[in-house]
Amino acid sequence: MMRDDETLLERRKKVLAPSYRLFYDQPLHLVRAEGVEVWDADGTGYLDAYNNVPIVGHCHPRVVAAQNNQATILNTHTRYLGEGVVRYAEKLTATMSDELSQVILTCTGSEAIDLALRIAQTASTPKGLIISENAYHGVTASASSISPSLNDIARHTPWVKRIALPFDASPADVPDLFDSAVANAIRELDEAGFGVAALLFDMAFASDGIFLDPPGFPSQACARVQASGGLVIADEVQAGFGRLGSHMWGHQFHGISPDLVVLGKSMANGLPVGGVVGKPELFASFAERGRYFNTYAGNPVCMAAAEAVLDIIADENLLAHAVEVGDHLRAGLIEVTAQHGLPANIRGTGLFYALEFRDSHNTPDAQRSTDVMNALRSQGVLVGQCGLGNTAVKIRPPLPFSLTDADRLCEALDEVLTNI
Amino acid sequence: MMRDDETLLERRKKVLAPSYRLFYDQPLHLVRAEGVEVWDADGTGYLDAYNNVPIVGHCHPRVVAAQNNQATILNTHTRYLGEGVVRYAEKLTATMSDELSQVILTCTGSEAIDLALRIAQTASTPKGLIISENAYHGVTASASSISPSLNDIARHTPWVKRIALPFDASPADVPDLFDSAVANAIRELDEAGFGVAALLFDMAFASDGIFLDPPGFPSQACARVQASGGLVIADEVQAGFGRLGSHMWGHQFHGISPDLVVLGKSMANGLPVGGVVGKPELFASFAERGRYFNTYAGNPVCMAAAEAVLDIIADENLLAHAVEVGDHLRAGLIEVTAQHGLPANIRGTGLFYALEFRDSHNTPDAQRSTDVMNALRSQGVLVGQCGLGNTAVKIRPPLPFSLTDADRLCEALDEVLTNI
Repeated sequence: MMRDDETLLERRKKVLAPSYRLFYDQPLHLVRAEGVEVWDADGTGYLDAYNNVPIVGHCHPRVVAAQNNQATILNTHTRYLGEGVVRYAEKLTATMSDELSQVILTCTGSEAIDLALRIAQTASTPKGLIISENAYHGVTASASSISPSLNDIARHTPWVKRIALPFDASPADVPDLFDSAVANAIRELDEAGFGVAALLFDMAFASDGIFLDPPGFPSQACARVQASGGLVIADEVQAGFGRLGSHMWGHQFHGISPDLVVLGKSMANGLPVGGVVGKPELFASFAERGRYFNTYAGNPVCMAAAEAVLDIIADENLLAHAVEVGDHLRAGLIEVTAQHGLPANIRGTGLFYALEFRDSHNTPDAQRSTDVMNALRSQGVLVGQCGLGNTAVKIRPPLPFSLTDADRLCEALDEVLTNI
Repeated sequence: MMRDDETLLERRKKVLAPSYRLFYDQPLHLVRAEGVEVWDADGTGYLDAYNNVPIVGHCHPRVVAAQNNQATILNTHTRYLGEGVVRYAEKLTATMSDELSQVILTCTGSEAIDLALRIAQTASTPKGLIISENAYHGVTASASSISPSLNDIARHTPWVKRIALPFDASPADVPDLFDSAVANAIRELDEAGFGVAALLFDMAFASDGIFLDPPGFPSQACARVQASGGLVIADEVQAGFGRLGSHMWGHQFHGISPDLVVLGKSMANGLPVGGVVGKPELFASFAERGRYFNTYAGNPVCMAAAEAVLDIIADENLLAHAVEVGDHLRAGLIEVTAQHGLPANIRGTGLFYALEFRDSHNTPDAQRSTDVMNALRSQGVLVGQCGLGNTAVKIRPPLPFSLTDADRLCEALDEVLTNI
């Protein structure tokens, strides 16, 4: 680490609370970014194979132009009539099924989850929630209480049931295994007198370690919950906006019909925007309990950026691109790990992968995942980690990631696995 | 309303959930803003005497330049090392006392309140909260549950005690009245076995109807709570950033020493930024319970805007300006209402006033407040309402509001009161 960075790190420790964390054994000081490339204070460039917020690429000129132009004209709130928020809501709901026709905007995915839970609890008197084993849904008091990847609250809450994913089952068995786990949770919640308010899950199960095979596997369980009077809440914060390539949304990838859809992260390529899309009858019931006004949410500058993101995904054909590059990347990951004779479980689709090394007993090797992440940084490639115990390397680049970028990642991985 | 606006209103009702609200009997469609002036779709200009988010003026060129420039360079998160968030945290904490030396950034005031409550509940096992009678603290599940201005949850929560403000008491009696109400609340919470986690209040009691006289009145009660082992949480979302003129922060206006300070709204002149400033020992205790990472919070673009706001407040001498213009405005409001022989209670300081008309029994006249707000809009001046039952006209302009603007507001009020 350079001396200037050490000074900055000291200053940071003094004024930012200790709950802040930095990536990597040696923190990375970023100063510039463009497309899928970022640069540190030393001028070193890195291929960004991790960041999902800048989904159409860092500092995309169209997003920047849209938000910067709007910033010179007007930035106010939704208690005045304005065209931007309405046009955005129209374009957003047009990407989903007809029954998902209304929107409430927030500023973050956490606020959107928090709001979706408030709406779900209006719609059904029972309070039971079914989530995944290592779920992450956000940082508000409410959202963090159903985020077992953050803390133990959900483990000690009798009306929250957690579903473990069948990582090593045969794909053909997965739908029934998932459904029967959900059926058990419903029964337990019913027996305890809570009933089921909602089944809520990240459409890619990212914090659990990314789990998407076979496509459609959660649909039986979702239908079961809805038949029991519960809602299905689709957390699209990571899986949405074309991340999975074949579909704009994770719930479309799985062919399920959620009642509420929660959005965040990639929504405006970096400015704080989140939201809940859902069925009008649920919003009507929520509105009877009072108004919801979020000062910054739906502001014209953020809406200009968010609209540009939707336009760019369509105009630059980023879904088809993610399929093509994602297939190439997946094949490359399989090839490199096989060449090194390393057993690995590679999960995901589109531009979203978990690369989980296994030991001779087929147990996930979390230490190797950490070592590979740090070593890839030395090779100029940024990736992350996911899974309970950070067992896997997480690959989730901005969507303009190219075939050449995928090759660069695989070459760096080859180099890392040779030296590790 | 113009035909185009009717069409837009219909489109809005279709895609935005019914919990959305619009100001005014006839909604106002804004398309442009600059300084303290806004324009509707028809080209009509309005003097903005209401909006606090653009605290240094709508579309301030220095804020716009700072955020727009940063948007072309880099916008990422705090898990990489970066200069902007550190420099902002340093400048922000420099405006407060030495013991308020650390920061956690959020995206909204709601998230900041939600976080402050999580921190308060770490620091002290009791759960009791003391808030004001018609408090508003935000829209997350947690924040809205202590916002009796939004819903009835706090009224039915045994560990939340609400304090009514002594609006019509002699100022000399106010400190003791407030203190004894807080003492009663502490006793009730202790007797019920909850104890006191925190006294939390908006430093201007804005949603209660703005209550600031005499300066320092809450200090006895705050000392009492702290002596009982509870925290004092200063909600500066409306009173902070120089709004009160004489001081940068409401808690400084009152000479109180909060443990946590909650910020929002005006923080970045429009982009979503909130935060909690507090004592390091509280943050250390919170950090022991786990990390806190808010994806968008502290991003370089929002930090550039937020830093520009602090710089502009200092460089343009906006505190002294708010004192000068505020005194002139207050004198004008007193003069106009007196000329019309209308009894009115005018509360506030700096550039933050409640104008509460009273009837012959000295009862607040909420209907007149609503009528005046709508009529002022017809005269080209935007104001709001506050107080339990919206009893008062709320005047809270961007700080660059000038002596001429104050005169324009008083002339419009004179016209309105003549015709009403």
